Amino acid sequence: MMKVEAQPGAGTHHDAHEAREQRTTLFFSVQDQVGALDECLRALKASDISMTRIESRPSKSAERSYDFFVDIDAGTKELVQKVVEAIKQVGIVRDVRAISSLDIPQVTSQQQVPWFPRKMSDLDTFAEKVMEMGEELSSDHPGAKDPVYRRRRLEIVQMAKMYRTGQPLPHIEYTEQENATWREVYTRLHDMYPRYACREFLHVFPLLEQNCGYGPDKIPQIEDISRFLKDCTGFTLRPVMGLLTPRDFLNSLAFRVFHSTQYIRHHSDPYYTPEPDCCHELLGHVPLFADPHFAELSQEIGLASLGASDEDIEKLATIFWFTAEFGLCREGADVRAYGAGLLSSFGELEYALTEAPEKHPFDPTKTAIQKYPITQYQPMYFVADSFRDATVKLREFNKTMRRPFQVRYSPYTQSVEVLDSKDKVHHLARSISNEMQLLANALDQL
Amino acid sequence: MMKVEAQPGAGTHHDAHEAREQRTTLFFSVQDQVGALDECLRALKASDISMTRIESRPSKSAERSYDFFVDIDAGTKELVQKVVEAIKQVGIVRDVRAISSLDIPQVTSQQQVPWFPRKMSDLDTFAEKVMEMGEELSSDHPGAKDPVYRRRRLEIVQMAKMYRTGQPLPHIEYTEQENATWREVYTRLHDMYPRYACREFLHVFPLLEQNCGYGPDKIPQIEDISRFLKDCTGFTLRPVMGLLTPRDFLNSLAFRVFHSTQYIRHHSDPYYTPEPDCCHELLGHVPLFADPHFAELSQEIGLASLGASDEDIEKLATIFWFTAEFGLCREGADVRAYGAGLLSSFGELEYALTEAPEKHPFDPTKTAIQKYPITQYQPMYFVADSFRDATVKLREFNKTMRRPFQVRYSPYTQSVEVLDSKDKVHHLARSISNEMQLLANALDQL
Amino acid sequence: MMKVEAQPGAGTHHDAHEAREQRTTLFFSVQDQVGALDECLRALKASDISMTRIESRPSKSAERSYDFFVDIDAGTKELVQKVVEAIKQVGIVRDVRAISSLDIPQVTSQQQVPWFPRKMSDLDTFAEKVMEMGEELSSDHPGAKDPVYRRRRLEIVQMAKMYRTGQPLPHIEYTEQENATWREVYTRLHDMYPRYACREFLHVFPLLEQNCGYGPDKIPQIEDISRFLKDCTGFTLRPVMGLLTPRDFLNSLAFRVFHSTQYIRHHSDPYYTPEPDCCHELLGHVPLFADPHFAELSQEIGLASLGASDEDIEKLATIFWFTAEFGLCREGADVRAYGAGLLSSFGELEYALTEAPEKHPFDPTKTAIQKYPITQYQPMYFVADSFRDATVKLREFNKTMRRPFQVRYSPYTQSVEVLDSKDKVHHLARSISNEMQLLANALDQL
Amino acid sequence: MMKVEAQPGAGTHHDAHEAREQRTTLFFSVQDQVGALDECLRALKASDISMTRIESRPSKSAERSYDFFVDIDAGTKELVQKVVEAIKQVGIVRDVRAISSLDIPQVTSQQQVPWFPRKMSDLDTFAEKVMEMGEELSSDHPGAKDPVYRRRRLEIVQMAKMYRTGQPLPHIEYTEQENATWREVYTRLHDMYPRYACREFLHVFPLLEQNCGYGPDKIPQIEDISRFLKDCTGFTLRPVMGLLTPRDFLNSLAFRVFHSTQYIRHHSDPYYTPEPDCCHELLGHVPLFADPHFAELSQEIGLASLGASDEDIEKLATIFWFTAEFGLCREGADVRAYGAGLLSSFGELEYALTEAPEKHPFDPTKTAIQKYPITQYQPMYFVADSFRDATVKLREFNKTMRRPFQVRYSPYTQSVEVLDSKDKVHHLARSISNEMQLLANALDQL
Repeated sequence: MMKVEAQPGAGTHHDAHEAREQRTTLFFSVQDQVGALDECLRALKASDISMTRIESRPSKSAERSYDFFVDIDAGTKELVQKVVEAIKQVGIVRDVRAISSLDIPQVTSQQQVPWFPRKMSDLDTFAEKVMEMGEELSSDHPGAKDPVYRRRRLEIVQMAKMYRTGQPLPHIEYTEQENATWREVYTRLHDMYPRYACREFLHVFPLLEQNCGYGPDKIPQIEDISRFLKDCTGFTLRPVMGLLTPRDFLNSLAFRVFHSTQYIRHHSDPYYTPEPDCCHELLGHVPLFADPHFAELSQEIGLASLGASDEDIEKLATIFWFTAEFGLCREGADVRAYGAGLLSSFGELEYALTEAPEKHPFDPTKTAIQKYPITQYQPMYFVADSFRDATVKLREFNKTMRRPFQVRYSPYTQSVEVLDSKDKVHHLARSISNEMQLLANALDQL
Repeated sequence: MMKVEAQPGAGTHHDAHEAREQRTTLFFSVQDQVGALDECLRALKASDISMTRIESRPSKSAERSYDFFVDIDAGTKELVQKVVEAIKQVGIVRDVRAISSLDIPQVTSQQQVPWFPRKMSDLDTFAEKVMEMGEELSSDHPGAKDPVYRRRRLEIVQMAKMYRTGQPLPHIEYTEQENATWREVYTRLHDMYPRYACREFLHVFPLLEQNCGYGPDKIPQIEDISRFLKDCTGFTLRPVMGLLTPRDFLNSLAFRVFHSTQYIRHHSDPYYTPEPDCCHELLGHVPLFADPHFAELSQEIGLASLGASDEDIEKLATIFWFTAEFGLCREGADVRAYGAGLLSSFGELEYALTEAPEKHPFDPTKTAIQKYPITQYQPMYFVADSFRDATVKLREFNKTMRRPFQVRYSPYTQSVEVLDSKDKVHHLARSISNEMQLLANALDQL
Repeated sequence: MMKVEAQPGAGTHHDAHEAREQRTTLFFSVQDQVGALDECLRALKASDISMTRIESRPSKSAERSYDFFVDIDAGTKELVQKVVEAIKQVGIVRDVRAISSLDIPQVTSQQQVPWFPRKMSDLDTFAEKVMEMGEELSSDHPGAKDPVYRRRRLEIVQMAKMYRTGQPLPHIEYTEQENATWREVYTRLHDMYPRYACREFLHVFPLLEQNCGYGPDKIPQIEDISRFLKDCTGFTLRPVMGLLTPRDFLNSLAFRVFHSTQYIRHHSDPYYTPEPDCCHELLGHVPLFADPHFAELSQEIGLASLGASDEDIEKLATIFWFTAEFGLCREGADVRAYGAGLLSSFGELEYALTEAPEKHPFDPTKTAIQKYPITQYQPMYFVADSFRDATVKLREFNKTMRRPFQVRYSPYTQSVEVLDSKDKVHHLARSISNEMQLLANALDQL
Repeated sequence: MMKVEAQPGAGTHHDAHEAREQRTTLFFSVQDQVGALDECLRALKASDISMTRIESRPSKSAERSYDFFVDIDAGTKELVQKVVEAIKQVGIVRDVRAISSLDIPQVTSQQQVPWFPRKMSDLDTFAEKVMEMGEELSSDHPGAKDPVYRRRRLEIVQMAKMYRTGQPLPHIEYTEQENATWREVYTRLHDMYPRYACREFLHVFPLLEQNCGYGPDKIPQIEDISRFLKDCTGFTLRPVMGLLTPRDFLNSLAFRVFHSTQYIRHHSDPYYTPEPDCCHELLGHVPLFADPHFAELSQEIGLASLGASDEDIEKLATIFWFTAEFGLCREGADVRAYGAGLLSSFGELEYALTEAPEKHPFDPTKTAIQKYPITQYQPMYFVADSFRDATVKLREFNKTMRRPFQVRYSPYTQSVEVLDSKDKVHHLARSISNEMQLLANALDQL
């Protein structure tokens, strides 16, 4: 779940911005020569600045070169400068570039691009970065004055904070009280789905019951769900402390990763929560990540968000709001709900499908700039023809963004490739060519 | 490492065959109807036969259907029949198919196809299935009479036996004696590489030193190596007890998975081992799995092996032998080694690049049927023009195999898809079309 | 030039409909057997009905079959039926289908599809079929009462009527009076172009001067122009008597063929003509057919029109009107004209680029249903971002049409292929795969 | 038909070389500026050298530029130099390149490339260039001493000499004697085909009877045949005086153009001819050009020959010899003939399919360098698995040639595009992307 704001520029946005300033990743290439790698490493270490990662890899751009990836912690403009200068001293180094929110124009001739995760494990940097209600609750939270609830919530949140890529997902032994809250929510929504939820949601739901322990009795474990989703579409879940910034949240979708909270709302009011909880995630969001077309749509939003400008992030977050959170879709003559905000709230689910709210066709150029309230029922919804159609429209829309490069996600290496060299494009062409031959062969045998 | 045999039909082959008979996977599709999933589950359970897996998933072939995957343990023809009959009683079930080595002609009109892993976790079934020298050493092993060595080896082998997909790879605290053996091998080979190893190997090696703890002092941990390889090409390592059957070993390459032993040869003779050990795997095999073209070549062999006939498996194993184990390649006017059997044996490495042995251009049609000795230096080597060229030639060769279907590996879901329906081919076409647009856009911005 | 009507359903539309009823093409396939072709021919001839074409070809759908194409002249439902029955008597015949406007439901299970040209020479059937002002002028034509003009016009029109595919295009020796009319129009428009015409038009125009005899002195010959266009984009010109039906006119664009009149307006009023003439065609239309992106846009409209329903033809004709005839396009902050109706009329060219008329972004869903006047300046224009963008939008729009098949134009055989069999799709896949390999190789050498 | 020589370097080869020296084509690009085209034209004319073509076109490499194509007649190195200097004086000219056999290193940094046709009409330059027996017969020709035969032959040859692209193909009114010769050849071969000819040949032959006037009575007209072939595969025929150089002959195949003689052998010996005649062309070659896979194979040889080195031309001519002229192919357990040299010679047709001659699998790397006799039965034949397989193998082989660029034939513009700029590759990518979407849509509707 990401933090959304109807009025951009308000309070927490600034915090998010500050948080982002911490991150700078330097990339540079080195020619393959005897001792090249060691020389670079020495130069980096000589700069005497804290680096959270130094990785060298075979270059993906040029056959006989190496790529270095260096994360500089707590970076200021001057510190980054210092490292860059140190690197440049090494004669065989080429093409030093920085992905950073710092203003470092001299590092790169390229337009300044905000930092974005390049590989799955880069998502670990989000673990401690939560906008609000991470470890502390706001005063209007129904559990704010319940010390037992707060302790329990903090316990679960700590497990999310400690989680790193590749580890087994935290297993929570839910209490009987927690399971009771879940039961109340589950039972009531489960009854409503056949009348309100979209076909794809209804198709997946019984599979979650059969394979992942969904049912009224116990809160399912995200480890089981994540494994199931991986089989279906490659999506996986990660635990999260609370609300991420829109940028971080969307960025993770590029990796087919969804950040899911594991705590549950306060038992005093099972039908209300001011923050996302496992009811919202597991009932609202999870089912559709098992649908290939919805998974593609979500990832497409994620890919567009990598290195996007602040304005474009806001547009994409708005599109996410009106699709994955509050989206409706057409089913023949009918309209159904697919947004998680609807499918986890029986009140708005019923309301959304009445005549009361406005309904417009999903059109990213309009949807992206529509204002919306976050603390009351939506006055307006957007209706998609299908997830596939929405994806096609979104791709067209994404072309209008000003980002000066194309990205591609490689599920083999779980990393994002920036298609900025002839060699990378050529490699993509070879890969398409192979797929194309496979397709022709398969058609032959059909 | 796989078990290879110069004389097919000899001893252990029969064991492998028996082992394979244990496995049957049933697939069937069910239409999406109220209660459909439960009804199927009831029917399966009613058959009263032990099943190691019952999974239901959204169908990849037909939009409003479910796919069931059922593994039947210790299957005989009659038991499988019984389950099939039970399933067929469920009216909404369509299209029951079995992947099995049992002769079950009535289950499917399709040509009988040997069992093969469909998803990454299916590789877990290989864990206990090792052809020889799994838990026991043969009498000619230098460590056969050293009870300390045998205990230590068994301890490491047990960790491999317990390993399951998704767990962290076993961390071995190597003894000083083990590290000393490694040091002797490492130092001697490391000296030879600049003169004998191929360009790609030499390119990667320093990266392993910088990123994965390669060096004379300590045996590196496969967890670190696997993580590095995943970044480079998506290859990962799995621990293994000993020699797998050729079929199992090759099948795992389709998933970009390499089975690696973790124990080391007996300290009494650092330059000899009758079975693969970590020196062979980490020095011989690992470096090239970081090369994209070699990774592609290896996976191509793996994909061709899925469900292949026994004769085709033998051909592919022979190709693997003459490439990944004993391959030479052309570098300008020079010839260099890239096979692991050479790069982990200073004796044969030197010999192979002399004038003594025969050398022929790599040509899968000929290479696949070449006989070879396994206990002495090879009298003949095959020289590839490049990994890419070898891959192209291999793809052409694979088309001549008689398998009645095409397979595609999905790195998102870490599963193998059989392209046997219009919907799957259509989905592939959409995916290629998207990639193609990405390529066109990237070219535009280059 | 096609006949357009602001009020569909009015006068001449009915004529067009009647004209269309004359045409039926039967397709059927025959298995390759000894004597198969002769047997079919005998059956056709036995039916004793006038057929304007009987062609047999190697089948494009099934490897060992033949395709027959039979045009039935002056067909009524009963006559066509009779031929169909005769064909069906031949045992080896498969799959008889008719493309016809007659209501022949029993011939084909497929939705009834209006006749459309399948190969370039099918366009010959348009030669005598002109909606109005073919051989006769309407009374409001400035030349209606000038017998010399009418005789001259008829003479030119007769050459168009006689023209058949593959012949050299008619060469007209224009009189001094005709050249003088041309000079007046040419000179005045030529002066305006630098300020009003789009970049692509201005780019091509000097080439027409240098290569095709454009200039104030003499009316250029369409043979020279057609040869030039063929070099640039593959477009060619055909002479036409006058206004074609929208269906026929648009259908020909699928073949990259543009129907061009060769007579010129009456000398008494060089700035007015109630019908298209060579000033309109050669100055307005021709230049942009040399632009690859505009050529693609035009053909895309043409391909969508093949076998389209009457309503869809009307939409496509409206899109043609607001693009090729009266289109504007964006050039940075500027707006320029690219429509032929503007570029051949100095009055409307000036007016269109003032603030007076409404201007909307080109959006096929809206443009396709916009009403428009045909005898006065347009009150509203649509502005394209670029020809490429308009083509992308048009393709999206075309997907919403209800035609149950996809078509592809083969420039090798100058024929339209309906992609309705696995073999044809497979063939397309092979062709794409070859192109893809070429692209990869070309990238490699760049 | 091309002139082939078993011993390269012999007599006529030198003539061919001289002939080639006559041709130089200059290409250059000019930026789009006011007056740019006129300025270039003035510069060209000022050089005062005879140019057979000056064409300006919209550039295919750069959006706002023009391409000039200038053919310099009777060029020597110095004359070409002079023109190049004149062009370079024009400031806005970029990138002057020459395609020429002259040694003009200073014109281009690129490797010197032999002249090759860029557009269909460039084939007109072959009309008068025939290696031997064009207008005169050699003394061993059975008709050499028959003045009536020689006059008749010369008459037909003159029509070929005058033919230019776009004209109707010459119609020959054959004499009764000529038809009688045809009858004898036709009848005898026609009887043999069912036992010896390949499946594809037998499939097409009855179509030629039904559609193109094939039969024992009269020699068919190449105009009818050419129109039929165009419908089938886009191949067309052109009349030719006699034997072309291998380079010219192969080059024309890139355009799917086959040069066909129209005269017939001397009536005194209907079963022998020392030169190709209409029996050889129409019975031997024509049928398979109607087969899509054979057409593709032939064009592939043609494309590889464009600008190829002399050695590569010789290899490709040898491949043509062992496929299109003397090729055999596998049909199940059977072997059949598809080469025109066999299918037009009942003696060798019978012999080739006996055990007498050697037969090897078609493998371009070996076939390309196999020596062969030209005046006696072949001692060795190559057997293709299928035309498709032969094409795949040929493409692989072509990659080993040293030509520094890739070419693509555009059937729209009937011209050859050299893929040497990012814009051209990008354009190809867009085109593939469109085709790919079409394929996906077609699959959807199947």
